[in-house]
Amino acid sequence: MAPSRYVGILALVAGCLLPSGVQALWPIPNKLETGTTALTVSPFFYFDVQVEGAPLDLYEAVSQAQFYLANDKLGRLVVGRGANDTTALVGANTLSTLTLSLMSGATAEPIASEAVKPLGTRSEEYTLTIPADGSAATLVANSTLGLYRGLTTFNQLFYYYSGVTYTLLAPIAITDTPAYPFRGFALDTARNFYPVSDILRTLDAMSWVKINTFHWHITDSQSFPLEVAQYPELAINGAYSPQEVYTPSDVQYIIQYAGARGIDVLLEVDTPGHTSIIAATYPDYVACFDETPWATYANEPPAGQLRFALPEVVNFTASLLADIASTVSSSYFSTGGDELNTPCYTNDYPTQLQLNKMVLDWNITLSNETIVMVWISSEDALAVAEKGFRIVQAPSNYFYLDCGAGAWLGGDPTGNSWCDPFKTWSESYTFDPLANLTEAQYELVLGGEQCLWSEQSSPDNLDPIVWPRAASSAEIFWSAQQPTGAPLNVTEALPRLQDLRFRMVQRGLRPIALQPYWCAIRPDACDLTA
Amino acid sequence: MAPSRYVGILALVAGCLLPSGVQALWPIPNKLETGTTALTVSPFFYFDVQVEGAPLDLYEAVSQAQFYLANDKLGRLVVGRGANDTTALVGANTLSTLTLSLMSGATAEPIASEAVKPLGTRSEEYTLTIPADGSAATLVANSTLGLYRGLTTFNQLFYYYSGVTYTLLAPIAITDTPAYPFRGFALDTARNFYPVSDILRTLDAMSWVKINTFHWHITDSQSFPLEVAQYPELAINGAYSPQEVYTPSDVQYIIQYAGARGIDVLLEVDTPGHTSIIAATYPDYVACFDETPWATYANEPPAGQLRFALPEVVNFTASLLADIASTVSSSYFSTGGDELNTPCYTNDYPTQLQLNKMVLDWNITLSNETIVMVWISSEDALAVAEKGFRIVQAPSNYFYLDCGAGAWLGGDPTGNSWCDPFKTWSESYTFDPLANLTEAQYELVLGGEQCLWSEQSSPDNLDPIVWPRAASSAEIFWSAQQPTGAPLNVTEALPRLQDLRFRMVQRGLRPIALQPYWCAIRPDACDLTA
Repeated sequence: MAPSRYVGILALVAGCLLPSGVQALWPIPNKLETGTTALTVSPFFYFDVQVEGAPLDLYEAVSQAQFYLANDKLGRLVVGRGANDTTALVGANTLSTLTLSLMSGATAEPIASEAVKPLGTRSEEYTLTIPADGSAATLVANSTLGLYRGLTTFNQLFYYYSGVTYTLLAPIAITDTPAYPFRGFALDTARNFYPVSDILRTLDAMSWVKINTFHWHITDSQSFPLEVAQYPELAINGAYSPQEVYTPSDVQYIIQYAGARGIDVLLEVDTPGHTSIIAATYPDYVACFDETPWATYANEPPAGQLRFALPEVVNFTASLLADIASTVSSSYFSTGGDELNTPCYTNDYPTQLQLNKMVLDWNITLSNETIVMVWISSEDALAVAEKGFRIVQAPSNYFYLDCGAGAWLGGDPTGNSWCDPFKTWSESYTFDPLANLTEAQYELVLGGEQCLWSEQSSPDNLDPIVWPRAASSAEIFWSAQQPTGAPLNVTEALPRLQDLRFRMVQRGLRPIALQPYWCAIRPDACDLTA
Repeated sequence: MAPSRYVGILALVAGCLLPSGVQALWPIPNKLETGTTALTVSPFFYFDVQVEGAPLDLYEAVSQAQFYLANDKLGRLVVGRGANDTTALVGANTLSTLTLSLMSGATAEPIASEAVKPLGTRSEEYTLTIPADGSAATLVANSTLGLYRGLTTFNQLFYYYSGVTYTLLAPIAITDTPAYPFRGFALDTARNFYPVSDILRTLDAMSWVKINTFHWHITDSQSFPLEVAQYPELAINGAYSPQEVYTPSDVQYIIQYAGARGIDVLLEVDTPGHTSIIAATYPDYVACFDETPWATYANEPPAGQLRFALPEVVNFTASLLADIASTVSSSYFSTGGDELNTPCYTNDYPTQLQLNKMVLDWNITLSNETIVMVWISSEDALAVAEKGFRIVQAPSNYFYLDCGAGAWLGGDPTGNSWCDPFKTWSESYTFDPLANLTEAQYELVLGGEQCLWSEQSSPDNLDPIVWPRAASSAEIFWSAQQPTGAPLNVTEALPRLQDLRFRMVQRGLRPIALQPYWCAIRPDACDLTA
């Protein structure tokens, strides 16, 4: 997918001030045309699915869209919250139908099947048209996944005041497609555990901003909450408690729930580092287990990493990863590979014994099918691109949601977090996915994601620490900051992000407040230069 | 109250390592003696109130203590969460009664009456004794307020495993009294609104750590959510919505709820700055209302402050504050007085006209009965003390809970918050209330408080941004870092704070996780030097 395809389209959006009535659109569509006519939604509004052989999850998506349309009840973010719109609504035309259909030649597969196809082969584009005269609106796409994305946009178009759901901006014409195929959110469920219900709520929120990958960092040194069929002892001995376990049916349900929302579940079982807790079951497989001082042997307590020089550990690891990978529907699986500690191995007798027995090539060679996640810094993308690998951008200096909360280690009263400062939504939003790369390397960038590492997070702060901040990258990688297009603009974006945040509140999420409410209902009044 | 009274007592605590079984005590009592005998709580345990003329709110406090005792069900924060304690509990003695009584000569007034007496005249001390042989425990105090504090401590003493509530540390003898009379928490309900239920939940949590003052910053430039009997238009025109108002009965209920928990409500109606929204009702009373660029005329949008040079504004302000003050039971009231903007007045014609008509003495003189809150920096206390004022310590560089979240103003993508960085619990905990002062000035320090300013906060993140961090100052000002006593120690404190945090979770609060759960159940294992 060549980014240059979208440059022309984006310029259209950036070239005009967005009318306030479409502030709620996030991510902003590639092409958006609006009018100035009021249009109300009929109490008898229905979605007309004209899709031959429509899969069950498309009907579920339509039910969900119907629910949001009836229950969002979001007042416009202006003084009065829409009270001044009532005059315009008197005698307005009424919209009764949205007709969904596929382009000719397209086949109706389940959304969940479309969502897990290889990157670059998924079809997420759609065309949405809403006439001003009350005649049927239409949503057309090349796949059920595209229809799902279009429904998400449709739900963001309407406001509510005093019993009436409406837009002031008919006719509306949207043509939309993502700039990058990978748009993710990463959650660490090992440092602290998150019940399935928290993950489901997070998947809902991800779907609202068209994030299409749930990067699930499911295990780490501190706990192994994943129940693996052939290795049940890993969770029995490694989960924080018998209640804090993801069973195979939990994982399947999460995959199904995500798939129905156009989200691929990228499971990550980090190896050979970040595996200390495996020693609770297989003590012989782990070097430097719980050695102290832990800081000599690991980035975080407890120390311990797989003795991957030992043949039996290689076999175990391969078998474990294959077993887990066989349970997921995604085309991808993450094996981690980060933060290997050298003293842990150089001081480990079994590892050194094995190394002395053979000539080992330490230059690890990765298949060029491998996708590399760039996380330490945004500066590192170039080195990865120069080796020809495809890239997912997860730079800590822009996208780590946990930064800025200070040290969590004991005995360090004035310590900072390693990735200070806190990343505001607006700082994240200034990230340029193609910075430092040559034009020939642009196509290696598949997209990116924001991440929540959970040393200082748990279900108790999940919503406010993630939302709406994680929407920043969702817009970057959908609406695209292309090399020759106009860059995304934080001043233009803030009122839309406020709308998104308030719509999230209407849907039961607990996103953090971005500003005093006084500012939220007065777009731009609290800009630094206002 | 001379701080030196408590120096000897504190040294006792600091001189020994606390046994792990009392990790849950927060703030740590002045004098604490424990044994090593297991003692279980009888299923038929009851509180025996031997207080003549006991007020209703003492019985309510006892009911609450009974509820916590039965429902906290907090497992010890060790691997196994108490599974290894069951052997010790076999055949253990059983505690059936806690007898509450007042010292001879003390009279039983309502807790709510004791809580609002002038600072320095309240009696919060108590003595709690729990024998190891199962005979009745005793709680003795000089007031119902002291009994309430003792009940709070009693509830923190017990753990739960598999149907049994117990301690491993009988006999227990505690003698306890606060080092400082003022221990507060400040909440801004004007930048964003908090429903009454959020305030009540916060008062509960405050009472658990013996915080005795709710500093309620109830109005500001952005909104006026307080319904005032003689000035109802202020809320009608100044609240964010008709639903986002504190009615007189709301305020009375909050005062009553707080009082029953030993908490004084210190209402703050900030004047003459921070009053822009009053212009919605009285435009003639406000200078530079909504002037732009706002940054010239105010620290935050919207600009606007009372024209306090005008006699009619002086009369209005005096009448307004008197009206509000008459509705509270506290001995104190806060009139703000911070962040006056000079250009707002120098460019204001009515103000200049008035000033030209008279010779005004700009040297404002405060009665020496005034208590001054030090908030810009901890460096400022000395200057206040030198003028002889009593001090409440609320230094932004230690105690502002909202710092570190980046800029909230639009158009400032990489902006910081003015009081960066984030204040971790441990950084707050290192605050020395007497730093920079001379020994003669120590008695001017009444205590202190942590504050949540709500530009970027709302009910959606209230619990995790406040708790357990606001417990840091609660312990400083109860357990006291005295000039010649041993300082409080973050390494010793962390396991206790973890216990407090998990007990808060058991009671339905959503405090932020301090560390991975792996660390929480292994005290000290995640210390920087472990």
